[in-house]
Amino acid sequence: MTQSDDQAAILAHERRALDRWSQGDPKGYIAECASDVTYFDDIGAHQRVDGLAAVRGYFASLEGKVPTHRYEIVNPKLQMYGDIGVLTMRYEPFAPDGKPLQRWKATMVYRRDGGEWRVVHAHWSMVKE
Amino acid sequence: MTQSDDQAAILAHERRALDRWSQGDPKGYIAECASDVTYFDDIGAHQRVDGLAAVRGYFASLEGKVPTHRYEIVNPKLQMYGDIGVLTMRYEPFAPDGKPLQRWKATMVYRRDGGEWRVVHAHWSMVKE
Repeated sequence: MTQSDDQAAILAHERRALDRWSQGDPKGYIAECASDVTYFDDIGAHQRVDGLAAVRGYFASLEGKVPTHRYEIVNPKLQMYGDIGVLTMRYEPFAPDGKPLQRWKATMVYRRDGGEWRVVHAHWSMVKE
Repeated sequence: MTQSDDQAAILAHERRALDRWSQGDPKGYIAECASDVTYFDDIGAHQRVDGLAAVRGYFASLEGKVPTHRYEIVNPKLQMYGDIGVLTMRYEPFAPDGKPLQRWKATMVYRRDGGEWRVVHAHWSMVKE
């Protein structure tokens, strides 16, 4: 695998999670997470959520609350350090009628474990500008 | 170095930067950053700031705007993956009269390079709860 292959693989993971998220299914994100994942966001995770079981519980609490939308990943960047990839980007969602929804900035730290990339940390914060 | 030594070294770096920050000197943070650092925050970095020169310019724009305060690092956690350490924590500042100021949640990705830990990514978002 070249570094560029690794970057493509991580972005594919992220899009797979977000494709499900944007269809109202938060569980897609869980499938991409490592057992030791930690998580911050601006909704209900101002206190860090630690570990896969706790993150699963948190995302379960969001089920039914994510409206279906389409999204764009804007200006993604991957910093690669061997078996760690740090993905940063903006997430820009749109309602079915095209109206822009709340935008986000996001950090995901991916780790390669047994040949598969998994999220070990994510931090999502609202864009206000 | 044991993993616990690495964790202590990273926390010492972070405290050194924050000790200067809390005295109104944003440049302390620059001294801890790698050349390829990327940066998000909820003040003026809703667009990611890429690279040491740009981050230096951004922090220079904050000089004179950081009031002197004391701070507490709350619930820090370090996830160690070889030469990468992912530090997550809450930052709780207080005015000289003891009044709580805006609290933050923070992610710092540290990388060991030539024996020294440097920040390759940071993401600071305001706590609202």
